[in-house]
Order: sequence, then structure tokens, then C-alpha cells
Amino acid sequence: METKDFIDFGKAAIELIANYTENLREMNVLPNVEPGYLSKLLPEEAPQKPESWQEVLKDVERYILPGTTHWNSPNFYAFYPTGNSYPAVIGDLLCNSIGGIGLSWISSPVCTELEVIVMNWLGKSLALPDEFLNCNGSRGGGVIEGSASETTLLCLLTAKEQTVRYIKNLHPEWEEGFIKAKLVAYTSDQSNSSVEKGAKLASVIMKFLTTDEKYALRGETLLKAVKEDLKNGLIPCCVIATLGTTGTCAFDNLKELGPICKEYNIWLHIDAAYAGSAFICPEYRYLMCGIEYADSFNVNAHKWMLINFDCSLLWVKDSKKFTEAFNVDRIYLKHNKPGLPDFRNWQISLGRRFRSLKVWFVLRIYGIEGIQNYIRHTIELAKMFENYVKSDSRFEMITERSMGLCCFRIKGDDCLTKELIDRLTNGKKIFVTAGMCRDKIIVRFVVGCRLSREEDITFAWREITSHTTEILKSLKHSPVKEESFKSTNDIVTRIECLNLESKTQKIT
Amino acid sequence: METKDFIDFGKAAIELIANYTENLREMNVLPNVEPGYLSKLLPEEAPQKPESWQEVLKDVERYILPGTTHWNSPNFYAFYPTGNSYPAVIGDLLCNSIGGIGLSWISSPVCTELEVIVMNWLGKSLALPDEFLNCNGSRGGGVIEGSASETTLLCLLTAKEQTVRYIKNLHPEWEEGFIKAKLVAYTSDQSNSSVEKGAKLASVIMKFLTTDEKYALRGETLLKAVKEDLKNGLIPCCVIATLGTTGTCAFDNLKELGPICKEYNIWLHIDAAYAGSAFICPEYRYLMCGIEYADSFNVNAHKWMLINFDCSLLWVKDSKKFTEAFNVDRIYLKHNKPGLPDFRNWQISLGRRFRSLKVWFVLRIYGIEGIQNYIRHTIELAKMFENYVKSDSRFEMITERSMGLCCFRIKGDDCLTKELIDRLTNGKKIFVTAGMCRDKIIVRFVVGCRLSREEDITFAWREITSHTTEILKSLKHSPVKEESFKSTNDIVTRIECLNLESKTQKIT
Repeated sequence: METKDFIDFGKAAIELIANYTENLREMNVLPNVEPGYLSKLLPEEAPQKPESWQEVLKDVERYILPGTTHWNSPNFYAFYPTGNSYPAVIGDLLCNSIGGIGLSWISSPVCTELEVIVMNWLGKSLALPDEFLNCNGSRGGGVIEGSASETTLLCLLTAKEQTVRYIKNLHPEWEEGFIKAKLVAYTSDQSNSSVEKGAKLASVIMKFLTTDEKYALRGETLLKAVKEDLKNGLIPCCVIATLGTTGTCAFDNLKELGPICKEYNIWLHIDAAYAGSAFICPEYRYLMCGIEYADSFNVNAHKWMLINFDCSLLWVKDSKKFTEAFNVDRIYLKHNKPGLPDFRNWQISLGRRFRSLKVWFVLRIYGIEGIQNYIRHTIELAKMFENYVKSDSRFEMITERSMGLCCFRIKGDDCLTKELIDRLTNGKKIFVTAGMCRDKIIVRFVVGCRLSREEDITFAWREITSHTTEILKSLKHSPVKEESFKSTNDIVTRIECLNLESKTQKIT
Repeated sequence: METKDFIDFGKAAIELIANYTENLREMNVLPNVEPGYLSKLLPEEAPQKPESWQEVLKDVERYILPGTTHWNSPNFYAFYPTGNSYPAVIGDLLCNSIGGIGLSWISSPVCTELEVIVMNWLGKSLALPDEFLNCNGSRGGGVIEGSASETTLLCLLTAKEQTVRYIKNLHPEWEEGFIKAKLVAYTSDQSNSSVEKGAKLASVIMKFLTTDEKYALRGETLLKAVKEDLKNGLIPCCVIATLGTTGTCAFDNLKELGPICKEYNIWLHIDAAYAGSAFICPEYRYLMCGIEYADSFNVNAHKWMLINFDCSLLWVKDSKKFTEAFNVDRIYLKHNKPGLPDFRNWQISLGRRFRSLKVWFVLRIYGIEGIQNYIRHTIELAKMFENYVKSDSRFEMITERSMGLCCFRIKGDDCLTKELIDRLTNGKKIFVTAGMCRDKIIVRFVVGCRLSREEDITFAWREITSHTTEILKSLKHSPVKEESFKSTNDIVTRIECLNLESKTQKIT
């Protein structure tokens, strides 16, 4: 493709994106396709001959967008949000066009240097302790990774390596394999699935500790587990604490966990994937109290900081410890040492994109104030939603709203809430996800879209209440008595039979 | 930022990219900056207030491009190339703008479905055995990962898991930790550093086996190692074979390695990160002879297939085995099973980008023929370079040219070649990297840029020969005799003192 065609192509793509974004509110958030839809539309083999870019852009509208779940729609309240903004999109466009791979300083100096700078900027903006910053030859510093899963895995591996070295020092006669098999790590029963996965990948025993009534991991629980494991000959090596759990956005008690980790020489990693972005607002920093005990701290800027996936921020206090497990140098990677980090040794992959460019674009074009405004705005909208829920006696908040997340359910049997979620999903107007809280099904409703306005919250609430009215009415008119609200099995069976198994049938 | 501003911003960025690309040939490929340059130019804290996009784009030209190593320059011959093309850039622009996260089918149906389709397209285009394709409920299939490092790690972990299960079945009384500590994997002494790193991360003993005179791993060597390890109570679990090594683009002998892996129940993973793209041209498929024995096969489309980083293609024959080690499901990830893969279980991270979109753009706008033409063209240029080297008696090719890679050196002492690389790097006109072949320093010269033309090769050769002439002349005029060509230490010390340690001093 010639550059003159690229200019037309690129500008047409920019127009397409602008249109798409402007129309997001009007489109169904969930697509109207059945599994396998696309294989019926596309050929079985790649084209031999070139096709025109005009045809491909048309096919984006014909085949791609109709099968897309619109994560940037203001009607998207599922999972946690994915960050998105025009400056981030253009920043990444330039990153891709320049296209260098930051293997080492010389492989693209700006790639290493801008990353150090924006990670220091962000570290200061989140009020992290100075030990996490890269300055004046300190051992601390930040790096942009691909995901919280990756950071958790890396920190687990670091903890493993460090503990093996420590124990080997105490007991030189013990074999490494013997030590490794005895390592144990801790997290709460509310932590993200990536923690479980990380432990599997790292071959570390992970204990999922019970949380308190607010779903927070407490010191007492950790201490008991550590003592018991030590008694049984196990070796505690890592705690993965969460600030803002996936289920209910709960905050583990760092003030209590931290000193225990110090005492027992346990690596403390903080997964603040979602909620960490809020620490850019001083009023939420009380929730990170105890951060000074952490060895590593992670925030997914690609969730709630207007930056596109992937952009997972990781800070460590001692980068030497952190990289000891991964450093594998070869001659073609050697370069004149510039006193700057070799970020390839801070991650799983050798290659790395120039991700700091999009961060820089967002920080400059929004400014810290712009990001603060966005976060505060989404929290205000979540409060508005919370008030709706609390004002309707048919519903209950199962926990207090936390950040942009409201967890609620229809009072009574689980099948009602399950039915609500199914009807919302089938209706495709708003997208929420199910959660589980102490054996009860809940609706997780997260406000995070940068386009969200009050009218969107009102629209979502209208959707939720009208479906709920229908669900409850269908129960009343059914042969099953209203009391069966409490006798679960019948209703579950009935509603599941009518609606879940055979999606086409409606209760009216 | 409002959409109307984005349109202007986006179009200005497209113009900037077009200009940048058109000027690539005229710019020095290496930047003229010293380590730490950027921290002197940018403020120490992120801006509080928003700045205009115009200012930021200006700063891209002011601060970012001057610190960039231009990987897409036709004067870039270092490492292996990074894929880049206008269609890929625009495909990824749309991916970022749509911005969904493919956690599961419903989280964005098109994200899963297009990936299955393009991975089948590519699998067929590379003539992979049908078992690697996803069709009619087969267990095979392809997935797009972030890097070859990631795929190696995942395959090692899979091999580990499968072998533990297999051995546990034979010896139910053995503890898992005991089995894991005995697992051993094999690769050649020429394999990429990511294999060593993967083994470290996966806690598997990795044996680096000696290669033959063509730097290929042979069956005999593997068999001997396996038998010896079995005798010593170790348990072979994985072989990582390379098609196109990083050092010299050598090809391990799959025909010999495959049957041994089958006989001893060893997972065979093929790392064809660079050279794999060439199998899109039928004339190179003889090099993948024996592929039918592989359990998994990896090509970095982001190297030599005109697709931007990251886009690492992995195919497996048995996806059930592959995902058994990673599958961690939670309620918020549940959805109606569509008979399509849940790619989150095929990778380390939970989140995933819609990377198949850029692949689709490239395959359609170039067509298979377009990619074949590009690959053949770069190989032709490498042949042209090879002829230059062979025609000049001062140089020797240390191996035969392989694909786009020529490995050569100045005849005589290593210090001459080292000096040549240093002068080229300091000159910033062309970028090559050093390699090591059987204890000799070589220049790795890889042709891969889609903009490369014959005149670029001629220019590079002129650079190389004029520096070489100078280096050899300076030796002649020095007090050290010409014979000292063979008595390394003096020259090394002298040249290193004059040039390497104190960069400012010149030998003339």
C-alpha cells in the first residue's frame, strides 16, 4: 500500500471511529448474533489476491461491528470497565506506526526513557511511597506490563526465588526442589481468578483465606494461617492482597497484613487492578493505608484511567530482587549500560511495545485533573444508581457501593436475580454480569464509561425495574403460590425450564 | 476530548505517520541521544491541567522521534525485523477504538470468532497439518499470543502438567513435587534466550544440546541425552526445537527429533518465530519437514508477515491438553457455551485484545500473494548482500545465508568485526547487531523491511566496506605489525582502549 492510499485509508478509518463512538449510545450494547455467525459469512480460506481497503472498511461495518460487544458503550456495566479515550487511541496509533521493540535501551531509547518518566509521574500522582519511584539510582521503579495476571505471576515467581535463596542460606543442605515444594502463598477468597491461575502457573500452593463481613482479608486470619503452615513445615513466601476485589470491590486491610509480612519475611504484592486508579483522587487514598509495607503494587490503567488495554502498571521497591529471576542476557542484546532499566528483564516476554506513549498522551491531554474528574464523575453516577436501588423495596444492596460498583439483587430467591440477568442479557440494551456473594447470586453493576451521563443511569434503572416487574408479575400469575418465593427449588426449576433452557419461550 | 476534535487530531496523526514513513530512508536509523536525554527535557511531574493535542503532536516530533531507533527504516538490519504495514496499523487502530476485551464469547463474539477464522486461514496458508486447525469440533486450533516467549512458557507448562499426570498414573505413590523436580526439557544451544527464560519461569531443568556443523539439533544428540537422563532418574517432558534460530537462522532436524519425542512421550514444541512466516511460500516448506510430529507450533507474525507487534501465532494439536493447566473459571466469566474456544484459557492473562482484526486487514489488503511477494523480495535482497560479501576477500560468511539473514565477519581477529559493529553503531547510518558463532564474533545482517530496495543494500554495503577499509588501514599504520591480525590480545586491547572505552577518540 502506498503512502497516499494510507492517508485516505487512515482518514476514512478516523471518520468510521468517530461515527461509531457517536452512535454507541443508540446501539444495543450486546450483539444480536449466534455462536458461529461469522464462519457462515467469511470464506474458508484467506484471499490469494489483494482486496481494496474500501471493501475491508465496509466489511468492518457489515461483519465486525454487528458481532461486537460494545465495551465503550454507556450501557456497558459488566465486568470492570476497559479504559478508552481518543488521546490513548492516537497515542497507540503512533506507537504502532513507529513500531519499535524495546528490547534494550539502544533498541529504542525513547521507549525505555519515556516509560521511566511516566511511571514516575503516575507513581507521584497516586501518592506512592518514594521507594517505588525510579530516581537517583534507587532500586525502585515502575514498569508497564500487559495485565494484572502477568504482574501477579511475576511477583509470585520473584517471591519464590527470593524465599528459596533465603531458605537455602539458612539450610544449605536442603535441595531446591524440596524447598520449592514447601512454598505457600496467601490471598483472600475474594481475589481475582488470575491469582489462582498465577499460582497454578508458578507451581506455588495458594491458600484462599476467609474474609470478614466486608469481604476484606484481615491480619488475624493471615497470622493464623502462617503460624499453622509453619508448624506443618511449609514455607510462607507471598501474600497477594487486593484493593478493590472483582466481586464486590472490597479492600483488604493492609495495615494489619503488612506488619505480618515483614515479620515473616513474606513478599507483599498489592493487586489494585481496578480501584487503584482512584488513588489519583486524594479523598480515596485512605483505602491504600499500609501501602508502605508492600513490595510490589499493581494498577490496571487500562481499566479506569482512560488508557486502552493493555497497560498494567507495576511498581516494585527493589527491582534487583524483581529481575533476578528473569534476567537472561545474550550477546545480541548487549549494549552500553546507560544506568537505565532493561525492561525486558522485568517481564515474561523479550519484546515490548512503546506503551508509555499512550500514557503520555492521556496524561497530557487530560491532565491529572481530567482523570480525577472522570473518576469522580463515574463514582457520582454509581451513587445515583445506588440510590435508585435503595429507594425500591424489591431490591437489596448486598454490600455497600464501592467505587463505581453496585452489587444488588432482587430480594428473595436467587432465581429471580438470575432471571433478571438473563432477561437483561437477552434484551441486549444494557450489559451487567452476575456475581456470587456468600452463596447468593448478585448483579454486578459497574459505572466506568467515559461517555456515561445521568440519563444513562436512569435508562439502565428503567430497564432493570421493568424486567423485575415482569418477573415478579409472572410469578404471581403462575399456579405456584407467592410463598414459593422462599421455597427455591420449584421456582428455580420452573423459571430455568421456561427461560434459561429454552430461550425462545417467554413468561408473560 | 470531543469527537470533532478527535477527527482533526486523528487526521493530523495520520499525516504525521505518512510523513514519518516517507522520510524514514533519509533519517539516521539510530538516534543521536545519550542515555537519560529525555528526563532532561520533560518535567518531573505529570501536568495538572489539560494541554492541547496540537502541542503533544509537536512534542512527538520534538522529543519522541529524535530518541527513536527506527525499526521500520530500510537501514535497520538488526535483531530480526518487526512487522509493520499500513493495513496492520489501521486494523489495530480500529481494535483499540472498539476496545473490547475478549474474555469469553459473549464479552465480544467477533473477537473469538474472527481469531478462529484467521488462525485457520493462516494455518492453511502455511500448510500446517489439518490436526492443527479448528474445524468440526476437532481438538486442534490456533490462538494469537503476545510473544514467542509466552508460547514457549505455556507449552513448557503444558508439557509439565501432562507429564506429571502421566507419571502419576504409572506411579500413584510418587508425590507431585518429587515428579516435578525430576522433569527435564531439551533445546539446542542455539535456541533463543526466551527458551532459557521460559524454563526458569516454569521451573523445569533445560538442557542445551550441542548442534551439528550447520547449527542444527540432530536426533542422535537428543536420543543420547534422553537415554542418559532416564538412566539418572530424570523424566524428559519437552523438546523446544527451532526452525530459524536467532543466531544464524538454522533449522533443527524435525524428521529426526519427532520420532524420538513420540517414542518417549515428550511434548514437541516448534519455535519458528522468525522463519515460520516463510512457509507461506511453498518453496520453503521442505524446511518444516517433520512438522507432523509437533504438538505445538509458533510463528511470530509480528516479525516477518507485515503485522505489527504483538501477534505471535500458536497452533496446538490438542487444545484440551493445552488448556488443562490454565483453566480457572468464575461465575462472572460464565456464559452460554457456544462450542467455540475460550481463548482466555489459552494464555497467561485473562484479558485479550482483538488482535485478529489487524491480521484480517493484512491478509485481505495484501492477499497471500502480497505476503509471499514481500518475503521473496526480502530474501532476494539478502542474496544480493550475500553476493557482495562473497565478492570481497576481506570478509567471510560464517554460515550460508539463511532466509533474510547473512552472518559474516571480517577475516582475522574478532576485534576487527567488533570494531566494525561499533563504528556502524556510532555512525548511526545502518543498524546491525553482533552475534556469536562458535566463539567468533559475527555481524548479523537481516533484511526484513517492507521498504527495502536494492539501493538500500548497496548503501549498506558501502557503509560496511568503507568502515572496514578504515579499520584495516589504521591497523597497517599502527606500530603493531600486520601479523598481529592473528595475535588477538594486543589488538583487542588497543582497539578497545581507543574506541570502545573512550568513544570520542578516533583512529585515523
